[in-house]
Amino acid sequence: MSLSAQPARLNTTASDFEAQFAARLHWSADTDHAIEQRVADILGDVKQRGDAAVLEYTARFDGLQAASMAELELTQADFKAAFDGLPAAQREALQSAARRVRSYHEAQKKASGESWTYRDEDGTLLGQKVTPLDRVGIYVPGGKAAYPSSLIMNAVPAHVAGVGEIIMVVPTPVRGSVATGGTGAATAARGERNELVLAAAYVAGVTRAFTIGGAQAVAALAYGTATVPKVDKITGPGNAYVASAKRRVFGTVGIDMIAGPSEILVLADGSTPAEWVAMDLFSQAEHDELAQSILLCPDAAYLDAVQREIDRLLPTMPRAAIIAKSLNDRGALILTRDMEEACAISNRIAPEHLEVSSSDPHRWEPLLKHAGAIFLGAYTSESLGDYCAGPNHVLPTSGTARFSSPLGVYDFQKRSSLIEVSQAGAQPLGAIAAELAYGEGLQAHARAAELRLSTVPPMRGTK
Amino acid sequence: MSLSAQPARLNTTASDFEAQFAARLHWSADTDHAIEQRVADILGDVKQRGDAAVLEYTARFDGLQAASMAELELTQADFKAAFDGLPAAQREALQSAARRVRSYHEAQKKASGESWTYRDEDGTLLGQKVTPLDRVGIYVPGGKAAYPSSLIMNAVPAHVAGVGEIIMVVPTPVRGSVATGGTGAATAARGERNELVLAAAYVAGVTRAFTIGGAQAVAALAYGTATVPKVDKITGPGNAYVASAKRRVFGTVGIDMIAGPSEILVLADGSTPAEWVAMDLFSQAEHDELAQSILLCPDAAYLDAVQREIDRLLPTMPRAAIIAKSLNDRGALILTRDMEEACAISNRIAPEHLEVSSSDPHRWEPLLKHAGAIFLGAYTSESLGDYCAGPNHVLPTSGTARFSSPLGVYDFQKRSSLIEVSQAGAQPLGAIAAELAYGEGLQAHARAAELRLSTVPPMRGTK
Repeated sequence: MSLSAQPARLNTTASDFEAQFAARLHWSADTDHAIEQRVADILGDVKQRGDAAVLEYTARFDGLQAASMAELELTQADFKAAFDGLPAAQREALQSAARRVRSYHEAQKKASGESWTYRDEDGTLLGQKVTPLDRVGIYVPGGKAAYPSSLIMNAVPAHVAGVGEIIMVVPTPVRGSVATGGTGAATAARGERNELVLAAAYVAGVTRAFTIGGAQAVAALAYGTATVPKVDKITGPGNAYVASAKRRVFGTVGIDMIAGPSEILVLADGSTPAEWVAMDLFSQAEHDELAQSILLCPDAAYLDAVQREIDRLLPTMPRAAIIAKSLNDRGALILTRDMEEACAISNRIAPEHLEVSSSDPHRWEPLLKHAGAIFLGAYTSESLGDYCAGPNHVLPTSGTARFSSPLGVYDFQKRSSLIEVSQAGAQPLGAIAAELAYGEGLQAHARAAELRLSTVPPMRGTK
Repeated sequence: MSLSAQPARLNTTASDFEAQFAARLHWSADTDHAIEQRVADILGDVKQRGDAAVLEYTARFDGLQAASMAELELTQADFKAAFDGLPAAQREALQSAARRVRSYHEAQKKASGESWTYRDEDGTLLGQKVTPLDRVGIYVPGGKAAYPSSLIMNAVPAHVAGVGEIIMVVPTPVRGSVATGGTGAATAARGERNELVLAAAYVAGVTRAFTIGGAQAVAALAYGTATVPKVDKITGPGNAYVASAKRRVFGTVGIDMIAGPSEILVLADGSTPAEWVAMDLFSQAEHDELAQSILLCPDAAYLDAVQREIDRLLPTMPRAAIIAKSLNDRGALILTRDMEEACAISNRIAPEHLEVSSSDPHRWEPLLKHAGAIFLGAYTSESLGDYCAGPNHVLPTSGTARFSSPLGVYDFQKRSSLIEVSQAGAQPLGAIAAELAYGEGLQAHARAAELRLSTVPPMRGTK
């Protein structure tokens, strides 16, 4: 079968542009009520029965039989063996990537994650103390979607923040058990482990790890069991069951954003080789048929050139079928009036990944308000950011860059306000607080402030 | 009726301490499925029908009839009139409080909310750009629970962050309409406005405001209507309907934490007048019968003294009934072995408000890991922090201080990673990225990196 990939060709001057643009962008996560109910049941069961429930669900869903949770725990020796078993080039690449990611997040911590205080003239101290979370859980999907780079991107900022313990969960389903429904016939079979993920656990410094997954793993982390320690926050991607479970345990623990399909938006002024930009669009499209690749450019001939490169390169790609479906269904090459308009459209989309493929990227960067990550200049392919440039690759999707941020050290820290009011400071502050508290009808608040005054006035509104 | 308030008297050396402690702390937000379903229906309806649906729900739930949303919009003149109508002392207190809150949050922005970048030796630029949200919504509860101080605490950090527009919603139910079910008999009646809240809107700088509330107001802000602009984030407290609606729109917009009952924990070494500490416990208890006030102290005689002050002061308090119920049901005076143990117990609770009522508070502060706000020394009553010390009074409750932070400027900003890889930098990074991308089976990712290499190698795994 001969594949072709034809992203929609839009033009901002066309009368139907808005409608076509809206149709291309439309995506909404369906809520599946059956999944929601099953997840609620699993969470309740694990909360109540702990390890026993986790073992049952792991046998049922992953076809992995174990007599105790201890059998499902991976060891540091497992991580080391996986790492040692890799080809030298992969070992070095993993370590270089982790080193660069660590160095970036250390800069991030220094720039925005340190405690601070100041004193008023009257001696009153104000500030914030920044402290790491005690223990976090990282969910790593099983099977093909298990990316060692994701583990590094989740674990390294936690480490840099100073998190004491990092607990990883990763399902290792017995081959065929999920597809077949896991009949139990696979008893004693060992689940499929992803050696690259285990090696990444070694490089990233995971404290403990369990081969469990799904809503049962999220529940174990959120509530704790006899074996799995309760964590303070759960991060990492997962399927619809995992996403639903994370939403439900939010409040008991912290969670990261629930990710939608991945997206790239390229702003091009025509100066980057069309082949490079075509491959950048592919690199997003190959993730998933729902992934979205959009190119905005004021030069129609350049859009033609990129389309020609798409046609030429597509047959060479092992994942051509996924790429073609993604580009045909969700991709777009959009002709804009100028680069300014391209920037304005990008702000409306608030893309996860934004490449400014221009010979003068710093001219456009200040116009770009909403994006997960901004890749400046022709040499900055998004894939460098995915693995090793340093910044985190866990980014807000589906327009949530309007209000949320890349995963970072700050996600593994929390802040406590610090207030030390001096005796002198308590005088004017007490008068203000009392005035407002009486206004709100909160007399004990007012009185607590007034008792610290040098001359305590009579209480207003006393019974 | 003579009231008495007897917080539970616990002792950490008692054999049943753990059980009693757990019982006192137990609190869980019930999920009411009927509320959930009604909220889902209201959200769907407002999403589809916009203003018309909002008007209908406002008539039904608040008894407030209006022919158009324009009738439900408050004006800057309304805010100004409310402010001008206040007694001078209240006007000045509001302005002083807002000024101090602003100054604290400006320091916060400077310490942790500015953009940063650095360059590698090879010229590669890395960093983060920090930008404000475009538009946020602040929910202000109607009626008695409407606190002008809350509006200041939500709006000022948004302003300091640089948010362009702040949209306030505040229900103004027609008196009796909620209790009676809102029969419509109140046609043309004006809803009950809280003048202090409107005055606070003047001081805090609200852009636009609508007298709508409940799930319908959350929906209007999250989805936008013809009249109500769609926002990027919704903050502010509300009842069970509002909390449920906020959870559901999370992802479409950002939300702040869903707050549980308010809590104070006082660590006392016995050096603060017992009367002051008793009043501080009252100031939490008076909020709500579910509020929790706990005192930890290694000195039994001091606990006795505080109990005597509770007994003496309770009859003088206008809100004595609420205080008594809160202290009787959820309060505790806990005798600890020493201050170190008191600090350890505090960390287990991760309280919203933590007073270190000690003559040497800086000795204990480093031991305190989890708390929303830490109040140091005898003069720092929690109520000063509630109104005017400067730090935010919107704090993580119910133990969520283990993983979350006070509301702050950072809640109204988001970050975009910045990456500009130089041609020189693209060489080593490209090799690392390609190695890892091939390992993950993502050939387009690998190829996008390799195309930027000076010598482009053949693609691995080509079909």
